[in-house]
Amino acid sequence: MPIVTVKMAKGRPVEKKRSLVKAITNTVAKELDLKPEWVTVLIEEYDQKNWATGGKLHSDKFGSGFGKKGVLKSPGARK
Amino acid sequence: MPIVTVKMAKGRPVEKKRSLVKAITNTVAKELDLKPEWVTVLIEEYDQKNWATGGKLHSDKFGSGFGKKGVLKSPGARK
Amino acid sequence: MPIVTVKMAKGRPVEKKRSLVKAITNTVAKELDLKPEWVTVLIEEYDQKNWATGGKLHSDKFGSGFGKKGVLKSPGARK
Amino acid sequence: MPIVTVKMAKGRPVEKKRSLVKAITNTVAKELDLKPEWVTVLIEEYDQKNWATGGKLHSDKFGSGFGKKGVLKSPGARK
Amino acid sequence: MPIVTVKMAKGRPVEKKRSLVKAITNTVAKELDLKPEWVTVLIEEYDQKNWATGGKLHSDKFGSGFGKKGVLKSPGARK
Amino acid sequence: MPIVTVKMAKGRPVEKKRSLVKAITNTVAKELDLKPEWVTVLIEEYDQKNWATGGKLHSDKFGSGFGKKGVLKSPGARK
Repeated sequence: MPIVTVKMAKGRPVEKKRSLVKAITNTVAKELDLKPEWVTVLIEEYDQKNWATGGKLHSDKFGSGFGKKGVLKSPGARK
Repeated sequence: MPIVTVKMAKGRPVEKKRSLVKAITNTVAKELDLKPEWVTVLIEEYDQKNWATGGKLHSDKFGSGFGKKGVLKSPGARK
Repeated sequence: MPIVTVKMAKGRPVEKKRSLVKAITNTVAKELDLKPEWVTVLIEEYDQKNWATGGKLHSDKFGSGFGKKGVLKSPGARK
Repeated sequence: MPIVTVKMAKGRPVEKKRSLVKAITNTVAKELDLKPEWVTVLIEEYDQKNWATGGKLHSDKFGSGFGKKGVLKSPGARK
Repeated sequence: MPIVTVKMAKGRPVEKKRSLVKAITNTVAKELDLKPEWVTVLIEEYDQKNWATGGKLHSDKFGSGFGKKGVLKSPGARK
Repeated sequence: MPIVTVKMAKGRPVEKKRSLVKAITNTVAKELDLKPEWVTVLIEEYDQKNWATGGKLHSDKFGSGFGKKGVLKSPGARK
């Protein structure tokens, strides 16, 4: 009964979370030959002020966008 | 000096937390033959939208109740 | 750049891990609209003696099997 | 269905772990008004070379003892 | 590409976080012979009601202060 | 009393760990205005088979090297 934790930027809507946990659960259950009911998924959301790469806070690097769009419009790099 | 982390649903009152950390500390200290002062307990609260089992968010399965009562009145299962 | 952690029973072969991290990465990248290169996956393996549900060690409940087969042949329950 | 993680020094025997997870599960179930079956306990064991307080590795401070006895006979302090 | 997590009391200002992640990143990169760009730092903030030592919540022991000043003026001990 | 966790590749020698925890402790204590004795550092070592970026295990990408040297001689990318 695996426990999967997803650390990600804060603020995605519940519809996105609903879809994410379903997809991860199915993927893990299939890959590990487990029943989906045995899989737990925890989402841990981080404020961009609490996540840093290369010594820089993501709030400074990327602002508040998500995914590819957030990154492409930011002056920093990926997110 | 063990560090105990309790991941649980968000929202229990401080009185409950106070009692919980005291009880866990005493249990761990006794079991491991340690002084209670050496035990750290961290409570990590999760929104029901950030916890899923069987691919379903607990906010969808259980709503916002706690413990046995929350589960018994929910249309889903345990919580 | 999400960080996904999978806590699971110890001992699966590297072929299974290789397949697992690829599948999770693709699932998360698609769901969150991110490039796969931005996704990190960490596998944390637990000895069955270090994982308990219902107050019983999995080494006592399930022995050393994995997935559905491990559980079905065990005298305990799921794993 | 809380998930309790216990980070502690590596090497305690399975009898001690069996007793520990049972006691923690009962404590948490009682405190949070949950069924014991809903509680998961994970034990995470750390080598003394991977745990430091005050900037000093516990392998340097305490050697390899456990609990009060380990500490009392060590030249360092508590463990 | 190490991932460093800092669990600490909630509420420090972003200027302090900015300085903290930069300093940790430089320290880790230097110590481990890595480029700073490869280091990730995550800050996990805990409410004083969710952190306990010796079986007592820090909100009861220390109130809401930070660092040495917070402790020195508190009736409890360190924080 | 912050708790700092460093997730990194497995296998560095104890001399390196000793130096790492001392440096991190001093950095954190200075940045957060805390006494070094209040800082805990945990090192969590991952086998290269249990760490993936971009959907590829680091054992496949980088082999078993550390730091810049390990990466520079690998056919993959950074590590």
